[in-house]
This record gives sequence, C-alpha cells and structure tokens, in this order.
Amino acid sequence: MTSPVAPDISELQAALVRRLGATSVITDVADQQRYCRDWHGDVTTGAVAVLRPDSTQAVAQAVRACADLGLAVVPQGGNTGLVLGATPDDPQRQVVLSLERMNRVRQMDPDDFSAVVEAGCILQQIQEAADDAGLFLGLSLGAEGSCQIGGNISTNAGGINVLRYGMARDQVLGLEVVLPDGTILDALGSLRKDNRGMDVKQLFIGAEGILGIVTAVSLKLYPRPEQIETALLGVDSLQSAIALYRRARRDCCDLMTAFEFMPPAALMLAREALPSLTVPIAADHPGYVLMEISGSGLVDIRALLEQFLENVMNDGLMHDGVVAASRAQAANLWKIREAMNEGQAKRGAHLRTDVSVSLSRLAEFVEQAEERLRQAFPQCLTLSYGHVGDGNVHINVLPPVTANAVDREQIIHDAKDCINAVIDEFHGSISAEHGIGRLKRGEFEARLSEPRRHLLVAIKRAIDPHLMLNPNCQIRLDT
Amino acid sequence: MTSPVAPDISELQAALVRRLGATSVITDVADQQRYCRDWHGDVTTGAVAVLRPDSTQAVAQAVRACADLGLAVVPQGGNTGLVLGATPDDPQRQVVLSLERMNRVRQMDPDDFSAVVEAGCILQQIQEAADDAGLFLGLSLGAEGSCQIGGNISTNAGGINVLRYGMARDQVLGLEVVLPDGTILDALGSLRKDNRGMDVKQLFIGAEGILGIVTAVSLKLYPRPEQIETALLGVDSLQSAIALYRRARRDCCDLMTAFEFMPPAALMLAREALPSLTVPIAADHPGYVLMEISGSGLVDIRALLEQFLENVMNDGLMHDGVVAASRAQAANLWKIREAMNEGQAKRGAHLRTDVSVSLSRLAEFVEQAEERLRQAFPQCLTLSYGHVGDGNVHINVLPPVTANAVDREQIIHDAKDCINAVIDEFHGSISAEHGIGRLKRGEFEARLSEPRRHLLVAIKRAIDPHLMLNPNCQIRLDT
Repeated sequence: MTSPVAPDISELQAALVRRLGATSVITDVADQQRYCRDWHGDVTTGAVAVLRPDSTQAVAQAVRACADLGLAVVPQGGNTGLVLGATPDDPQRQVVLSLERMNRVRQMDPDDFSAVVEAGCILQQIQEAADDAGLFLGLSLGAEGSCQIGGNISTNAGGINVLRYGMARDQVLGLEVVLPDGTILDALGSLRKDNRGMDVKQLFIGAEGILGIVTAVSLKLYPRPEQIETALLGVDSLQSAIALYRRARRDCCDLMTAFEFMPPAALMLAREALPSLTVPIAADHPGYVLMEISGSGLVDIRALLEQFLENVMNDGLMHDGVVAASRAQAANLWKIREAMNEGQAKRGAHLRTDVSVSLSRLAEFVEQAEERLRQAFPQCLTLSYGHVGDGNVHINVLPPVTANAVDREQIIHDAKDCINAVIDEFHGSISAEHGIGRLKRGEFEARLSEPRRHLLVAIKRAIDPHLMLNPNCQIRLDT
Repeated sequence: MTSPVAPDISELQAALVRRLGATSVITDVADQQRYCRDWHGDVTTGAVAVLRPDSTQAVAQAVRACADLGLAVVPQGGNTGLVLGATPDDPQRQVVLSLERMNRVRQMDPDDFSAVVEAGCILQQIQEAADDAGLFLGLSLGAEGSCQIGGNISTNAGGINVLRYGMARDQVLGLEVVLPDGTILDALGSLRKDNRGMDVKQLFIGAEGILGIVTAVSLKLYPRPEQIETALLGVDSLQSAIALYRRARRDCCDLMTAFEFMPPAALMLAREALPSLTVPIAADHPGYVLMEISGSGLVDIRALLEQFLENVMNDGLMHDGVVAASRAQAANLWKIREAMNEGQAKRGAHLRTDVSVSLSRLAEFVEQAEERLRQAFPQCLTLSYGHVGDGNVHINVLPPVTANAVDREQIIHDAKDCINAVIDEFHGSISAEHGIGRLKRGEFEARLSEPRRHLLVAIKRAIDPHLMLNPNCQIRLDT
C-alpha cells in the first residue's frame, strides 16, 4: 500500500464494480464528495471508490475484495466525527466503506431491556424506536440526527448523558464485527453478565475502525424516563458549579442526566446566532448551569428538583435559577446551549478543544488555562464550557472577527499548544470524547508512553497484519 | 517451559531468593499450601515458589526474574476464585505471584468520587475506606472479606449490585499493569472521559492474568447511599419474579441495588445450616425475592419501597412480603441467602453452575433445564437461584446425601453436560461471573467460534509471546 508506483485507479474501480456490483460502488467524484469531506468542511479529499454494502456478508465481501486489490478501507458512519477519523488521506489507495445502507433495527426487546441494531442506524432513529417500545437509550449528543451508531461505538461517543449512563462503551452488550481478513466476529448477544474469557469486543469500541468494522450492535436500554425536569441556574464561578454538582449527586440520588456549564459569553454568542432567543435569567452571572434530572415511576422528579434548588439557594450555593414549566420551555433552555455553538461558528475559524481532567482539579485547570490564554492572546475570546460533571470541558479560543485566515491559523495553532501544555501538567486528556483520528494523531503519538505504544502496535499488527483498516488513523505504521 | 527435562527446583529457588530477597520468596511446601489450594479445597497443587512482591517495581522485577529463569507466573489475589484461575498446574515450572503485600489505599478523593488502590487490597477494606470518606464502591460479593481488588478486576467480578452498578469492569477508571516483559503500563488516571486511542486497559479486565498483572486500580465511586431498604417477598414463580423485576425497574426509578431470586428449597437448606435462623415469611411460597433499594439525599427510599409493594400487591403481582424495619433485620434477610450456600455445602459435593441467558428467556430456560434434570436425576435436589435481574442464575444439583464419592462425581459430570446442552440452545453463557480459569477451559474452548479463537490467540501471542503469564488458563497454547 506504500508502493511508490501509483495504481491504475480506473482498473481498480472496474474490479470493485465487478466483484461488488455497481449499486454498491460509487466512483463518480461529485457523488463521492460528501463521503470525502469532513464534518466542518475544512478538509476534502478523495478515494478510489465509496463502497456501500447493505449487509454484514456484503461488508465482509467488500473487505476481502479490497484486500485482494491491495486497497485500504476507511470505514465511515454518519461522517460527523471531528478528528478526520472517517475520511481518507490517500485517494490513490483507499476506499471509503459507508455503513449507511445497513440501517435496520433487527430487534427491540422490552422484556430484555435491549435492542439489536445495524451499524448504519442513525442515533435518533434508535432513540425513537426505543421510545416507541417504552425504552430509553442512554446516549445523546449534538449530532444525533446524523451520526450512526456504528460510528458512535467505534469512537466511544460521549455526549450529554454520560454522567448518568456512561459513554457509548457502557451501552454495548454485544457487537458484530467484520475483521480485516473478512471473517465475521459474531458477539451480538445481549447477556448482562458473561465472563467467558477476555472480552474481545471491548477492543473495537473506541478503536476508530483500525481493528475491525462494526456492523451491528446489541444495546443496553433503560426504562423510558417519564419525568424530565430541566433548570437553568446562575452561579458565581465554575468552582461553585462543581460544588453544586457534587451536592446534586448526593441530594438528587444520582438521578441527574445532564449538568452543563456555560460562561456568560455563551449567552452573548447564542444571541448572536439566534437573536429571537429568550433567556429567562439575568445575563450577568459569572456562570450558568443547565441541569436535568429524570426518572420513571414513583419518584416525584419535579418535587425533587424544586426541593434541591430551595436547599442550595438557602445554603447560598446558588442565587438565581429557573425551572422549565414545560417540555417546550426545557427545549428553549437547551437551545441556548446549541445556539452558543452556532454563534461560535459565525465568528469564523477558531480553536475547538475537547479536554478532560479529574473533577477535583477541573476548576483550577480551567483557571490556569484561561489565564495563560488571556496573557498570550489578549485579543481573543476564550470560552470554557461543557459536561463538567465528567471533568470534560471545551476550551475554545475565538480570534477577533477582523483577523484574516493566516492570522487565525497561527492563533489556533499557538493556542492549542498553550492549552496542551496545561493539560499535560494536570495529567489530563487531549481528547475526552472526540477521539484521535488523523487530526490529533501527532499530539497523541507525542504523548504516548512506551509500554502503551508497544501494546497499541502489537494489537494492531496482531489483528490487522497488513494494515488495511483505516491506515494512519490513531497511529502511523509502516507496512 | 514445555521442555521434557525437569528443571532443578532447588537451583531455581536459590536463584529467585538471590534476585528477589528471602522475604519475598516462599519455598517451604507447608507455607506454600494456602496459595496452591483452591477456594473449595478440592484441588491442591504446588509451585517452584510463591513470590510476594510489595511494590509495583518489585512485581516487575519478579516477572523479569521469572522470564530469565524460564518460569511461568500465576498471579494470585485473595485466591477466592471458583475456576482454578489463580492456582498453578505445573509445580515444576510455575511460580505463584501473590499480590497480598500490595495493600495500600494510595488515594481516596471525595471531590473526584474516585480512589486509587493497590491490587492486594481486600474488597471490604476498600468498601470501608470509601464509606469513611462518604463514598461507596458499587462492587459487593460473598467473598468480599477475603477477595482482593486485583483479582476482582482480573476476573471482572459480578456480585449482588450488578443491576445498579455493573460488573467490576464498570468500576474501573484506570489500571496499572505489569506486562509480561516486565515493563509497567501506567494507565492509572481517574478521567471519566478519555478517548485517546483504543482503550488498552480494557484488555486486562477479565483476562484472568493471562496478559498482564494488575498492580493497582483507579476506581469510580458513588455518593454513599444513606438509605438502604430491604424486603423479602413471596412470589408465584420465577416468571412472576421477573415480571416483578421489570415493574420495579420502572416504578422504583432504577434505584434497585439487588434483586435475588430463591426457590423454597433455599429456606430449607438455610435452616439446615443455621437452625436458629428466623424466616419472617411463610415457607411455602413457590419462590422468594430478596430486593434492596438504596439512595442518598432527598428521595424517601422507604416510602418508595412501601408504595411500590402496595401497588404490586394490589395488582396481584405479589402476595406476601416483609420489609426490614432495621439494618439488623435486613442483615437477617441476607443471612438466609448466605446460609443457603452453607446448607448446600453441608450436603456434600454437588454441581455448582453460574450461567446466564437473556432476561426475556430466563424463566423458560430455567424451566427447561430443571425439567430435564428432574427426568435425568430424579434422586437429586435441583436448586435455581441468583441475580435474576442480570439474567444470571446458579442452577445447582445436589446428589442425595447417601451418594458415595464416585456416584457424586458421575452425577456432577452428567448434570453439567445436561445443563450445558440447554444453555447452548438458549445462546447463554457457561460462565456469567466466575470466569474460565483452568476448570472451565475445556467447556469454553469447545464452544469458541473460529474468529473469536483467532482473536484470543492473536492477542495473547502479541502481548505474551513466550506464554509466561498464567499458562493454560482460559486457553491452552503450545510454545
């Protein structure tokens, strides 16, 4: 695959069509484009072909065909990833394998609190199917209308419900995976407890498709929460927000499903994106918390939230807050969070990070990072927000609107180095939930300990000896 | 290690003492015995030596010494396992490496809801340390007074709280592992979210020490539940118990921490072991459920349980029940569960199984298995009980008290085959929580699919190419 002689693309395309059928192979450059461009539209590449198998057997067949032709395979779900993990970087020698046609819910079992779904199912489609059965999937994220469950599993997606339900890994009961040699690992059971030897399926969760192609997932589901209560609170600082979070875990019996922190600039950016937005709280608090508690059955969630807020108000932990009186009002509160993201996009190219540190050091970490950014980039707007209950923040740096493309590029580069240095001091993660892909590979490899690198390489080579799955993602190896 | 020439044991012992120091090496056969005998006392073997390193560095040093001397290493925690996974099977060529001296709680962080503990910490010691800090570890099992956390992680232990808190895997935030080449993998962080490449630490959870030696664990903790309410209920059947479980999940807002099913024979056996035992419920119900709900803070757990029981009584799902009025009464209810195990032991050698199927098929599975056992072994007492919320039951077969050792052996063997056949029909697991070890290796290997076997072998050989860690555990490979 690293041979210097460029292969004959049209011959390869013809061979793929011959073996897999014309309906499963896209060769037209225009038709390929949406599979070869990343979510933000920052990077567009190309591929020998885009393959669209519609069954597990067809995926296996496609993998074998690519192996025979010396082509590498880049698996792709909804292509909503943020780290270039699902788009090719060698148009001459790589194909994209899209799972989008594998979109059946194979089984929904309310008696077992589980479902079996194919990798190409859109996350929201699964959420809705679960809801129809009185069930609930504990995975929810911004891209849920487009992202696919296979991608969620392969990237170990996080999102807003992690503090209650965990990451994507925690939703997995079983997997079906096509291995690099085209064989199919059927580990699709829904057993809650199964200690038959080492749990090999864990390897494919968060592997970003470098070890195998997830084709179906058996998911753990929960009773549908019948009561969901949402509040927007004003707090003194991130430190206060974290104190509030700790108190809420105890007082609210770990029934919190979301706890999002936003700085005041978030409201400003949200209004820039959506001027009609109603913000039912004073705009001058040093920080805001969007909090959600949910549950089913006999616990009165509304009363629980109100009692909790009354107590923390009396104790001086929080000074101002509003509880949504309806689902529409709750949706409006969440709109602030979403519009804030749009507002950032409107300010032009900027640095987005996705970092985590231990919860006990989060406030100190953000304070130090922001202080250093303020000193180094006084002209920029720095914005720290996120799923603070998980120790996960997005520290973003927005260059002034007047900055040109070259200056922005430089600021983004330097600000990332600045933040990474603080993360390293706090033993934090440069990628809390977005993964490594190709975008963060350099930063990742630079921080890999020798024993860890040794394990990664040994496992990759053991399972994918010809390096045909998603080459250059996570780690770079030579054939 | 498979060379036919027997090595000179005393030379090997002398070399180990020279390199590791006399206090860390047990060579006396009598002193070795407790490390070389399994929990039930059914199997006693021997070892070249028992090594007792007291630090991570010392474990690494011991592993390197063994590698140099051509010795294999069998890691051992509290030696409470039930499948011969931690005791040697080749006294001429294996050492036991006990983690018992690595028993420090390195860190307890209430602000982070986490702790870092060494592998040799006894589970109960960690539970108590967490409790002292207002925290709670979601792992609890019968052997908690003896088992060690390193063993719990290496076997992915289950226990009674799985339905709320998950298996041992779900409690792990980070691991420190000594690899077969004596290097140390430091993945001990406490990050809740960390998607920096594939999560290699997952490999060592449930690997029963065949890939590395867990030396320390970073654990996820919860707020200490301040209210724990326990009830013993009489039900019509296992089917009714499962219906009750489903209803309880919804009605009790997923706050259940235990849901144990017992047949009426359990009460009889419990009384045989502990004649003074008080059983505060009629002894003639077709089934019993021991149920616990717990929580912290503002939710009134007692009121929740009472309201739930009133509702299901009114709806005819349950006819008789008693709620413990104090922690002492609750402890007495749990004593029934424990005494039942002692009662079985008093009946002499018998078949113990640990199986799981999907919850939606559990009742049907147990019915079929019991029916076939009744027909094949009419003289035996069959007993099905367990953590039914997880689809996990122990179907045990007790030969008549008059049976001699040879007959018992035969019954145990044949009854296991009989149950395994039903498990296979239901796509269940022959080992829900106990693991494979050496005891179940044959049954495990006979059921391994080719792709799964290929992966297991590839991973084992990639990480432990000289097969020096826990040979013959889980899988048998030739050097």
